[in-house]
Amino acid sequence: MSDKPTNKYPPKGPSRGRNSAPERLWLYGRHAVAAALANPARKFRRLAATKNAVDWLNERDEIQNWQSRIGKGFEDLRPDAIDKLLPAGAVHQGLAAEVLELPRTRLKEVCSFKDDAHRPVVILDQITDPQNIGAILRSAAAFKARAVIVQERRTPPLSGALAKAAAGALEIVPIVQAVNIARSVEALNDLGYLTAGLASSAPTAIADLPKTCPIALVMGAEGAGLRQLVGETCQTLIHIPIDAQMESLNVSVAAAISLYAVSQPT
Amino acid sequence: MSDKPTNKYPPKGPSRGRNSAPERLWLYGRHAVAAALANPARKFRRLAATKNAVDWLNERDEIQNWQSRIGKGFEDLRPDAIDKLLPAGAVHQGLAAEVLELPRTRLKEVCSFKDDAHRPVVILDQITDPQNIGAILRSAAAFKARAVIVQERRTPPLSGALAKAAAGALEIVPIVQAVNIARSVEALNDLGYLTAGLASSAPTAIADLPKTCPIALVMGAEGAGLRQLVGETCQTLIHIPIDAQMESLNVSVAAAISLYAVSQPT
Repeated sequence: MSDKPTNKYPPKGPSRGRNSAPERLWLYGRHAVAAALANPARKFRRLAATKNAVDWLNERDEIQNWQSRIGKGFEDLRPDAIDKLLPAGAVHQGLAAEVLELPRTRLKEVCSFKDDAHRPVVILDQITDPQNIGAILRSAAAFKARAVIVQERRTPPLSGALAKAAAGALEIVPIVQAVNIARSVEALNDLGYLTAGLASSAPTAIADLPKTCPIALVMGAEGAGLRQLVGETCQTLIHIPIDAQMESLNVSVAAAISLYAVSQPT
Repeated sequence: MSDKPTNKYPPKGPSRGRNSAPERLWLYGRHAVAAALANPARKFRRLAATKNAVDWLNERDEIQNWQSRIGKGFEDLRPDAIDKLLPAGAVHQGLAAEVLELPRTRLKEVCSFKDDAHRPVVILDQITDPQNIGAILRSAAAFKARAVIVQERRTPPLSGALAKAAAGALEIVPIVQAVNIARSVEALNDLGYLTAGLASSAPTAIADLPKTCPIALVMGAEGAGLRQLVGETCQTLIHIPIDAQMESLNVSVAAAISLYAVSQPT
């Protein structure tokens, strides 16, 4: 067992298959770790906490008997000892946990719908910044997205700074790690979603999207936007109206506004 | 002239008066520096740029004759030499500039309105994170806010990481550095704004705000929310509807959604 985080990005070697052993990851920050403790699907290997953080955990109603989840993996440490477990500069708030990655989910399992609830899906095309991905997960959970779909090969580990920015959403929103984003958009078309790509040049404003079926929001990177094939696979392209004096919105802000807009009644 | 950034937060000693000499600040990042060059009100002392960054600047139509703005302050440097001018880890993209802070603006000068354009104002109560403030400025510019009002004593320098997150908006949106936020809310009430404080417990959803007059959005810090007196001074309190499984939105995301929502026709 190493004392140092093992998250490396990009990962070396070939992409992991679905059947390889789950990776170990570090989570830190009070909300990220508390949400993991409240998630029965999350397996813990170590939990390092200050006395203050333990008191804080004990006061949270949603986490019962968390000590039994950790067992011998619990370490009562001072903040500077927790610093040494994590990348430099990690703001851990006295809580860090080494956990196993969550079981992989498949698009069709988590995105199929039979009810009337028009819950959206978010697809990220080439968005690689951990802070932005984490922030998008947080908004996706807040607006009850069914899933967030990312490209397996391009996405940083679902841990650390990404998990902290997600503020617990990593434990709530299913994340599909897809091989091919255009094919994921196609699969959502087939499932009955209206797939809508964000593109600043699109003629339709997001508020004018019809709300007769659930919407899948497809977001490209700031600057580059959607890749051509991904944009062409979307059923429609939409934009968020902004003033010409700014080139663009931050991508996590654009995702949040889009999720809000599609959650509004027509 | 020092080689190191002179931005210090919190500032030592008493608050600077309106008539003291303008402070020197460092801006870095392509969008932040390009926007400063396009802003005639911004005074430059030094500009450090890589050859690539100079080429990039020369290709931008909105920046004419930028060399004449810099004069002898221009330094053609390699990336590692620019690193040394800035705080550790600053992602400068080959461009950094030492500038003077912009002239101070007064609330009544920038928030008064006589036209029909319902441009919003954003007031930040105790929001201190530079990334969040910068991100809010970026969204405020995108949704054509008349001004962003911050508390002078609690706000980090309008430079560095804040300016980078603002992506140029620092040069576009007037920023009022107020002594007292509750009194700023009162002043906006008097000017004819509907002052609306964001509070998760408020009964009214933001989409239901009347749009008969311009709206001033008052945002508190995540967790703490608005201070009592500030909340009581707002004419109304509103919330963004989110799912109960998440405690809150990121504050810059909440600001962006609010700006979008109030920009929508009723």
